[in-house]
Amino acid sequence: MEEVKVIEIKKSVFAENEKDADDLRTELKKRGVYLLNLMSSPGSGKTTTLIRTINLLKDKLRIAVMEADIDSNVDAVKIREATGIPSIQLHTGGMCHLDAEMTRQGLSNLDLEDVDLVILENVGNLVCPAEFDTGSCRNAMILSVPEGDDKPLKYPLMFSVCDVVVVNKTDVMPYFDFDLDKCREYVRMRNPKARVIPICAKTGEGVEVFADWLFREVRNWKNQ
Amino acid sequence: MEEVKVIEIKKSVFAENEKDADDLRTELKKRGVYLLNLMSSPGSGKTTTLIRTINLLKDKLRIAVMEADIDSNVDAVKIREATGIPSIQLHTGGMCHLDAEMTRQGLSNLDLEDVDLVILENVGNLVCPAEFDTGSCRNAMILSVPEGDDKPLKYPLMFSVCDVVVVNKTDVMPYFDFDLDKCREYVRMRNPKARVIPICAKTGEGVEVFADWLFREVRNWKNQ
Repeated sequence: MEEVKVIEIKKSVFAENEKDADDLRTELKKRGVYLLNLMSSPGSGKTTTLIRTINLLKDKLRIAVMEADIDSNVDAVKIREATGIPSIQLHTGGMCHLDAEMTRQGLSNLDLEDVDLVILENVGNLVCPAEFDTGSCRNAMILSVPEGDDKPLKYPLMFSVCDVVVVNKTDVMPYFDFDLDKCREYVRMRNPKARVIPICAKTGEGVEVFADWLFREVRNWKNQ
Repeated sequence: MEEVKVIEIKKSVFAENEKDADDLRTELKKRGVYLLNLMSSPGSGKTTTLIRTINLLKDKLRIAVMEADIDSNVDAVKIREATGIPSIQLHTGGMCHLDAEMTRQGLSNLDLEDVDLVILENVGNLVCPAEFDTGSCRNAMILSVPEGDDKPLKYPLMFSVCDVVVVNKTDVMPYFDFDLDKCREYVRMRNPKARVIPICAKTGEGVEVFADWLFREVRNWKNQ
């Protein structure tokens, strides 16, 4: 298997990130490419969730992944080895988030002619990534059970910009004080329209619900 | 019990944060106050660890806590209720970290004449807080078992600026793929001098090791 591509992302020169993000969305729409921005804390299980999701969808959609990290390329390698799909690593040069221009730099390293869905795994961080529109069609986030059900109270913006909150590591629920109903209530406080999807990426339980949502999203985006 | 104080922190106007941080350290030294900057991902157990640590030390040291968060005051309330020590909440106005000037604004709301040790619980984030010297005497961080042993590979700066890495939630080690030896090795790659202290804040196991380290630190700082 050839080596995973590592791209050193430069800090954006665009002051007007929001306009740039809208432009990027328009371009992606024209090309029929759906971009999902996936965010979370460090260690919430983004990569494992992606592997499960991709393996459920890869026969129906042409998928590529961009893994953003401060350093290392372990995630891009893991994704490629476990799913066989194109996966590149974006190094953010210490930056704590991606904006639309940085996302564009990543996309320019993918062959978008052959892709229906690009998943951007953002830097593990509940603060900064929420502040920057990447140009994605939707934002989703993963909250893992060990982090606690009170995270929507402490990181309000992250939960208000996400259309889907995947609650991961439900298998360890018995060992933590995590109340799923309370979590749903807190998420609703931040974003009444957000959907909460409990999963266990380790066993695969519930991942098909997230995969179905994503499949319908991509289909609608291409057909609208 | 009176209401917990909530301070809306303003963004720093000092370009030279490093100089400002050094100045703050010098001032604290003169006043005999030790400042610990405690960092981690969201949900790693900072507050629970602090409560255990404070209860072990509060008869020997006069302690105050500053809880930094984007929003909510749940942590400051928890600390005060569980330990009885002075605890204030710093709201960062969406900022993802604290710098020296922001820390100074917090400290100005504490009565430092009556304090030996101030613990700053930084915003839950493994990226940005590592980039800003708060003026603390030492940086410590908590890595919780569910986050995974590979975090030093992905968040190098955080691990290189911390003198102590507390590995929390060791009680759930059997349910996660977390290799403590591997973790120690990765931490050492980033900072050969960093000390790794495994604890379980929930049961209290190992917390006395962290408390002893902190007690000696404060004593040395005051006596040097």
